[in-house]
Amino acid sequence: MSNAKKTANLFSLPAISDDAEQIATLASAAGMRIERIVSHGHSSPADFWYDQDEDEWVILLTGAAGLTFDDGNPPQTLQPGDYLLIPAGERHRVEWTAPDQETVWLAIFSNTPMRAAP
Amino acid sequence: MSNAKKTANLFSLPAISDDAEQIATLASAAGMRIERIVSHGHSSPADFWYDQDEDEWVILLTGAAGLTFDDGNPPQTLQPGDYLLIPAGERHRVEWTAPDQETVWLAIFSNTPMRAAP
Repeated sequence: MSNAKKTANLFSLPAISDDAEQIATLASAAGMRIERIVSHGHSSPADFWYDQDEDEWVILLTGAAGLTFDDGNPPQTLQPGDYLLIPAGERHRVEWTAPDQETVWLAIFSNTPMRAAP
Repeated sequence: MSNAKKTANLFSLPAISDDAEQIATLASAAGMRIERIVSHGHSSPADFWYDQDEDEWVILLTGAAGLTFDDGNPPQTLQPGDYLLIPAGERHRVEWTAPDQETVWLAIFSNTPMRAAP
């Protein structure tokens, strides 16, 4: 319980290099974990698709991003506060993130199926 | 999967009354759920302590709040981005939230023990 009740700030970021996305696990429990992802102009490599074993609920908190699903639809632009559920196996990629500021995501992964609220 | 891949915005809030906190479950899976909590000047009732069966990882995203644990220490002020893990059974209360704007929290509850990252 040493880290419990101790407050940290999601936006207090170590310097990140321009060529690597930064991923940090903030907390975890059986079958789930909470990650902070920081992008700075990063995008998924050409022809790369995320194809995950886990369900992911993700919210963009600062910056902006373009997210594409492998369903033929154009990218959707995510602004601060935008969230969605990405079921396991839904192929997706990040087309772009804001070049001039950090894009901070909070992602919750679950290895059991996640339901979005109606 | 009808609600999957559909984007919503955490800060697009229905009007809330001054006398009720608004709690919405955004997504859930086995043993966990994700909630948005919106406060507008609310605080915990006098002498009330939250004493929860679940572990809670919570982040304050807009507004501000004063959070007290039942350990004799003074309230800590939470600003946007501040997050912490509140283990089950850790009695706590919200002393105050910002009176002039909405305080939006994102909380992840787990019924198995959650570990904070080092």
